[in-house]
Amino acid sequence: MELNLGDPLFATYAIAASLMILKAISMSWLTVLRMLQVNGGYRAPEDLKKTPLNPNPDPSQLLPNERVERVRRIHMNDLENIPFFLVAGFLFVATGPSLEVAQVTLYGYVASRVLHFIAYLSAQTHDVRATLWTIGSLILIYMCVHVLMTALPVLQ
Amino acid sequence: MELNLGDPLFATYAIAASLMILKAISMSWLTVLRMLQVNGGYRAPEDLKKTPLNPNPDPSQLLPNERVERVRRIHMNDLENIPFFLVAGFLFVATGPSLEVAQVTLYGYVASRVLHFIAYLSAQTHDVRATLWTIGSLILIYMCVHVLMTALPVLQ
Amino acid sequence: MELNLGDPLFATYAIAASLMILKAISMSWLTVLRMLQVNGGYRAPEDLKKTPLNPNPDPSQLLPNERVERVRRIHMNDLENIPFFLVAGFLFVATGPSLEVAQVTLYGYVASRVLHFIAYLSAQTHDVRATLWTIGSLILIYMCVHVLMTALPVLQ
Repeated sequence: MELNLGDPLFATYAIAASLMILKAISMSWLTVLRMLQVNGGYRAPEDLKKTPLNPNPDPSQLLPNERVERVRRIHMNDLENIPFFLVAGFLFVATGPSLEVAQVTLYGYVASRVLHFIAYLSAQTHDVRATLWTIGSLILIYMCVHVLMTALPVLQ
Repeated sequence: MELNLGDPLFATYAIAASLMILKAISMSWLTVLRMLQVNGGYRAPEDLKKTPLNPNPDPSQLLPNERVERVRRIHMNDLENIPFFLVAGFLFVATGPSLEVAQVTLYGYVASRVLHFIAYLSAQTHDVRATLWTIGSLILIYMCVHVLMTALPVLQ
Repeated sequence: MELNLGDPLFATYAIAASLMILKAISMSWLTVLRMLQVNGGYRAPEDLKKTPLNPNPDPSQLLPNERVERVRRIHMNDLENIPFFLVAGFLFVATGPSLEVAQVTLYGYVASRVLHFIAYLSAQTHDVRATLWTIGSLILIYMCVHVLMTALPVLQ
């Protein structure tokens, strides 16, 4: 693989990775949006200081708020998965798969995470959410095993 | 370094990185396994809906369960360390160390994390766990300092 | 881009990435330092076992301690941002920006995170902290969008 965005394999990786990064950091923005909506869900004691963004502070603003906590749980799930996808996907394209296999694998992962987000945000049952998470996690495992099977013989 | 798994340095990195990714995402699977074993330790309110996987929901299923929380703490420790190893290790092999140095450094890190996992899962004392974590953290710091000392002169 | 630290663009990325990794893992060391200072803020039940590092254990050592929790919140904020910067920055330099643009972007991100750390550690108002976080997050979004705009036409 060329480390060059003109290489279709590397471009595929770059697109999937950028989308997943934007997805993960959007959770921070969504947390902020919901904190503004519910005027609470804060965590740091100093967030009760009177400021232009919080003109009428109240101790209840530090209590957990379910609308905010839901996004924090989704965000945490991203942190448990997406950083590993970003590296596993890079190593996977470095094994030189066909472009079709790379696209199905990487875009399939992206799709599984977007669907997981929708299911979690709309409070679908644990079974639906778990199924979507499992699809993404199996893609991750497949990529890692494929990288190991390609790299291990090199060092023997 | 060639971005090619035929390059022994890059293959060494790919092996260590894949093992660490599999280790980290195994923590999600172990969390699921323990939640099934204790039939609880859930976090989202909708996990109390009656489903094929949870036929007899009960509010106590949302309480923290120490067997589940232990794996979550181990997982969190992975998230605080492994994503940074994945990038530091890549940059470290890009400095062109000897294959022996790269293998001792990267595989040493992998070993420190596996031992940390065993110590944490089996509830060894804080001192044992802290020692194993420290070894891994010092390897990370060594790699970053080495990268800085190689890259900084390039830009002067 | 050459995957070679002799390439100024890659060296710039390697410097920014190493600094951010050192910053993030320093939060673990700062957590340890504060736990030693307050002799508490522990999380695992076995941390109450009598050891050379904890000669007089007490159940209150497992209670949250604000001096420790503050560093944990800062650390969590790093985990929500820095792993994504590490990959977005790599892809951004792979698009071949000028060295000046790369340095302003990557070092600007590093500066925003250092200032965010200082503001959070010294308990500045939410508004100050949020402004500094926003600068870093917008740099991340800019890099991802730039990567997408470069990579998407390749696959059409």
